[in-house]
Amino acid sequence: MAKEFMGSDFLLENEPAKVMFAAAEKMPIFDWHCHLSPKEIYENKEPADIAELWLAGDHYKWRAMRSCGIEEKYITGCETSGYEKFRAFASCMPALIGNPMYHWCHLELRRYFGINEILSEETADIIWEKANAKVKAGGFTPRELISRSDVTHLCTTDDPADSLEYHKLLAAENLDFKVLPAFRPDNALSVELPGFAQWLRRMEETACKGINTYKELKNTLKDRIEYFASLGCRASDHAFSYVPCEEAGEQELEEIFARGKAGEKIDRLSADKYKTDLLRFLAREYAARGWGMELHIGPIRNNNSKMFAAIGPDAGFDSIDDYAIAAKLSAFLDSLAREDKLPRTVLFCLNPKDNYVLGSMLGNFQSSEAESKIQFGSAWWFNDNIDGMREQMKALGNLGALGKFVGMVTDSRSFLSYPRHEYFRRIMCNLLGEFAEKGLYPYDEKTLCKIVEDISYNNAIKYFGVK
Amino acid sequence: MAKEFMGSDFLLENEPAKVMFAAAEKMPIFDWHCHLSPKEIYENKEPADIAELWLAGDHYKWRAMRSCGIEEKYITGCETSGYEKFRAFASCMPALIGNPMYHWCHLELRRYFGINEILSEETADIIWEKANAKVKAGGFTPRELISRSDVTHLCTTDDPADSLEYHKLLAAENLDFKVLPAFRPDNALSVELPGFAQWLRRMEETACKGINTYKELKNTLKDRIEYFASLGCRASDHAFSYVPCEEAGEQELEEIFARGKAGEKIDRLSADKYKTDLLRFLAREYAARGWGMELHIGPIRNNNSKMFAAIGPDAGFDSIDDYAIAAKLSAFLDSLAREDKLPRTVLFCLNPKDNYVLGSMLGNFQSSEAESKIQFGSAWWFNDNIDGMREQMKALGNLGALGKFVGMVTDSRSFLSYPRHEYFRRIMCNLLGEFAEKGLYPYDEKTLCKIVEDISYNNAIKYFGVK
Amino acid sequence: MAKEFMGSDFLLENEPAKVMFAAAEKMPIFDWHCHLSPKEIYENKEPADIAELWLAGDHYKWRAMRSCGIEEKYITGCETSGYEKFRAFASCMPALIGNPMYHWCHLELRRYFGINEILSEETADIIWEKANAKVKAGGFTPRELISRSDVTHLCTTDDPADSLEYHKLLAAENLDFKVLPAFRPDNALSVELPGFAQWLRRMEETACKGINTYKELKNTLKDRIEYFASLGCRASDHAFSYVPCEEAGEQELEEIFARGKAGEKIDRLSADKYKTDLLRFLAREYAARGWGMELHIGPIRNNNSKMFAAIGPDAGFDSIDDYAIAAKLSAFLDSLAREDKLPRTVLFCLNPKDNYVLGSMLGNFQSSEAESKIQFGSAWWFNDNIDGMREQMKALGNLGALGKFVGMVTDSRSFLSYPRHEYFRRIMCNLLGEFAEKGLYPYDEKTLCKIVEDISYNNAIKYFGVK
Repeated sequence: MAKEFMGSDFLLENEPAKVMFAAAEKMPIFDWHCHLSPKEIYENKEPADIAELWLAGDHYKWRAMRSCGIEEKYITGCETSGYEKFRAFASCMPALIGNPMYHWCHLELRRYFGINEILSEETADIIWEKANAKVKAGGFTPRELISRSDVTHLCTTDDPADSLEYHKLLAAENLDFKVLPAFRPDNALSVELPGFAQWLRRMEETACKGINTYKELKNTLKDRIEYFASLGCRASDHAFSYVPCEEAGEQELEEIFARGKAGEKIDRLSADKYKTDLLRFLAREYAARGWGMELHIGPIRNNNSKMFAAIGPDAGFDSIDDYAIAAKLSAFLDSLAREDKLPRTVLFCLNPKDNYVLGSMLGNFQSSEAESKIQFGSAWWFNDNIDGMREQMKALGNLGALGKFVGMVTDSRSFLSYPRHEYFRRIMCNLLGEFAEKGLYPYDEKTLCKIVEDISYNNAIKYFGVK
Repeated sequence: MAKEFMGSDFLLENEPAKVMFAAAEKMPIFDWHCHLSPKEIYENKEPADIAELWLAGDHYKWRAMRSCGIEEKYITGCETSGYEKFRAFASCMPALIGNPMYHWCHLELRRYFGINEILSEETADIIWEKANAKVKAGGFTPRELISRSDVTHLCTTDDPADSLEYHKLLAAENLDFKVLPAFRPDNALSVELPGFAQWLRRMEETACKGINTYKELKNTLKDRIEYFASLGCRASDHAFSYVPCEEAGEQELEEIFARGKAGEKIDRLSADKYKTDLLRFLAREYAARGWGMELHIGPIRNNNSKMFAAIGPDAGFDSIDDYAIAAKLSAFLDSLAREDKLPRTVLFCLNPKDNYVLGSMLGNFQSSEAESKIQFGSAWWFNDNIDGMREQMKALGNLGALGKFVGMVTDSRSFLSYPRHEYFRRIMCNLLGEFAEKGLYPYDEKTLCKIVEDISYNNAIKYFGVK
Repeated sequence: MAKEFMGSDFLLENEPAKVMFAAAEKMPIFDWHCHLSPKEIYENKEPADIAELWLAGDHYKWRAMRSCGIEEKYITGCETSGYEKFRAFASCMPALIGNPMYHWCHLELRRYFGINEILSEETADIIWEKANAKVKAGGFTPRELISRSDVTHLCTTDDPADSLEYHKLLAAENLDFKVLPAFRPDNALSVELPGFAQWLRRMEETACKGINTYKELKNTLKDRIEYFASLGCRASDHAFSYVPCEEAGEQELEEIFARGKAGEKIDRLSADKYKTDLLRFLAREYAARGWGMELHIGPIRNNNSKMFAAIGPDAGFDSIDDYAIAAKLSAFLDSLAREDKLPRTVLFCLNPKDNYVLGSMLGNFQSSEAESKIQFGSAWWFNDNIDGMREQMKALGNLGALGKFVGMVTDSRSFLSYPRHEYFRRIMCNLLGEFAEKGLYPYDEKTLCKIVEDISYNNAIKYFGVK
């Protein structure tokens, strides 16, 4: 009657999908955007247990636990043990019906631990024992997990002020995968935030020179881009509630910068002027080097000020913002296209209401510089689930050239999250297989398998120009 | 070939769904938000005919008739008979393909009248006869309909100025269901509307004291909350196009209040300051009593000013507004969470574009005070249909803990609307059964049946703390 | 296993759908909104080849090619041949999986050329040969294509300053279809655009009199409406990012007009005041004649300023805007309804986030003047695909009276685009058949076939009052 839970045909609901997934699953992984720590990859420590692997830093799980009414001490508290946290998390699982977490966890248990039991309060103890025995038996260091996952390249997320020390060390190691830095200048762009002055000082230290003017900041960032490039960087990344586009002269920009450096309050319009100019400056540099510029659009962060004060950012208190984004984003991209300096750009969408806005925005700025030079990023964060991925791919299919899509990224802080590529590939093969099964696309295995292989891996390798 | 129209497996498209619905349909109903009249329940009159039951106050049906080009005299006119109106409505039915009204009407005909015919112009007369014979045979008073529907508790919608006279009378009756008041202070919050001063006078009369300052209003409302609580109230309800969050000092708030009391024009920002402060004041009181605070977000009302002048509000001339709602709502909820005074809160979404905004907002403010303390309200009004309910549940599944969902409410003015709970349960069982059938969730009957029983009834009983 | 690609049951996934489509496909076509050139219909030239038919003016195809990284010279360049462009386009086809273009192209190859091959780089040459042989054999002039497509009426898109010379000439011909003008006064409304003064001069020439005041412009436009009506016009059409509603006095409006005529810069609020008043003036005239007023809401145009300078408008550089539209649109429609001058109105939605806003807006202003006097336009432009059409029809079904829907238009510049009606009808029959198959609507062939025949043709004939 009911299909086996997460059996071999998991998410593959039609025959063409099964044929296509057999091809897609053979492809390696290029995880071109994640939040893994190069330091942790370099140090390559053995984890203590599954609680450390699963619950130490995963705000998705924290959030799910809070939704089930679990006390905070079992989530981020210091006074409870890993075992207690694991049990608390396990007790939440049955209520997470329809949540991608339910699938991610069981995929990880199966793929890395060989555990097929269903996680719940009842099975928490036996899974705790089995999983930790596996951890002890080895294979769970960062490097081992990356290798076991068939990753050829991954791009981390690095601040311009970062020395990239661990990237240099990793480059000297004989790894069977490449760890590339990615340039994330959010701190440089956030002139209005309290931490800006402090970040500037850090940047000065890294650069070994003073940054007294906006012009000097730009020069410094350009040097850092050059330095990142020398270590193999091919991508930059930026987070915005909305992409601004407000014009200002050099003098005004210098004044805004000076106020930011002095820690003074900066109104939103001024901040937007500064961001517009600086992102445009950076984008020109990306374009000159053939980098991809990732724009992650849509979060509203740190909504719970009490918990922010207690635990800090990235702890599960972010959600989806809902600005109107089309007009400014269009003007910003156009300002670069007009001078032939628009880099390859990946638009990531957090609010599903914007799927068609972003999916149709792409088409305004395509060029022969690359196949689908402007990309629609895979379903991200709150959309990283079956519905979100289907919607993103259907929108891209309807509006653009789905066959040229650069595909999935984990966007993750966890070394166990690579099965999300498998999850994505199954969902993609299922959707494209559906087209074939319904007679909406010819059932030509060669063409279909090539498309899913390309989306799984080849398109991204080509797009970002990695070797 | 085609399935029987609304047969026993109506909306149950997979085997697990059928098993689960067998469990869900046995659960009683807690209708924790509706617009039934406690006076009508108390008076418990026999209805004259199906026209009175169906067409006297149901703006959904009126709207459907207008969409089919029916003349207003057959909709709300005094010069036409119930029979003529019934015939006019029946003639519209075939064109309402894909409309939940089509299912609601036939469910009501089947469940209360035992009539299986399809309603149309051709069958209008025979159904008119059969239905009215049933009405005459009895079982159609408000109390009988509530009892026949297996309702254990229902929460009405009551103004703070309401004496709750009928609630007191009902509490003294020996009913097999409980009728609880719910606190709806929209009139107190609407300082900018023409009716504010008049409402204040009504409030003064009920309270038997003058309300000359904003401070006095707050004290009065606090007393009313206490009074509502003494009659079993466990919930409050509020309607907003968007939830405001604008700060103001006591002095300014007093001035805005004074202008409202004087019937002067109040600009939007001032009204938002007042609403923010008053709702925050009320929310603290709800939190202190463990009440649920329902926020219905998104309508634009009384769009047709000519018809509003002719027929008044709630006559089928409202639609969906489209403000950006995330930032202010977040700030408002945060302002309460910061002082540990955020009550249990149910966010209802009218614009489907906001499903993911609200569904992700929940997670920012969960706590161990209750399982899913912040709830995503069931698909409401224009979304109260198969698509809307599926989308709401899928969004909640993806973003939160669907197993902790407090489920359906009728939000209705009609004593015949309880089959909407059946409709909801069928759709819920079908969706969750789909997960099991596709191998997306283990097919474990015990767990699945518990989940649908909880969402159907138990979760809401626990959440609102009713007995 | 997989269904035949675009076989006879293409898009018909249930048995009722097949029965219903057999009825729907017999209906002729009334294409009440398109961009065909009356001049081209009158001149009725033989096309040179399939490149001219497909690639000379179709910005959908241009956009798809740019998404695949094709160089602009193979898209709009003068230096490349039709054959080269055709090959370039063919090479993109496999990547367009999930794009309606994939279906449109193959439908056109099958229905007009009798070619069943799948278009790709490999088959480009053979299809080029076969198609051009067919073109040479005849049947591909504008009039032949319209006749072959079983069109009874079509409405073009005409500027008020247009002489309608070709419409007069066509009216004198003995055609087996009617070519009606439709009134598109966008240029008259765009007081803020650089071309306004120039358009005014053109209008003066056509009208053979000076237009020195706003009042004179209104009088002139009224004359033109009368003239259009004399040639059978039954519809007007308007494009907006959002429908404005800002009030102004006669004096202020005259000043705004004067500035527009002088080519001076006009701020957005002033432009909105002018547009509000002029559209209201025009709408009263439409209402007096029983015309339908089409409002196309949502595009952001000419986003790529460099390409706009190089190629001009309507070249594939438009996308979807995302303003909040509900409040102003409601106020505008209400201002007309209040004086009983709201014409039959068709709301077209470009941003899918607005489907429920517009779908619920309809109901505010229905009246017995027509069945579904306020219509929800069929899925348009970026939504003109399987998903978009299903969403539009499901929204209309949930919110209104789907059986009264006036159905599909091509909105096209190409004489080969009529199979989009077939595409629409298949999707519609599939959706409505699904309702019947699942027991959500009675499987009554007569009723169901009547509904799809009405939506395919009869409703629009009745709604627009054409003969």
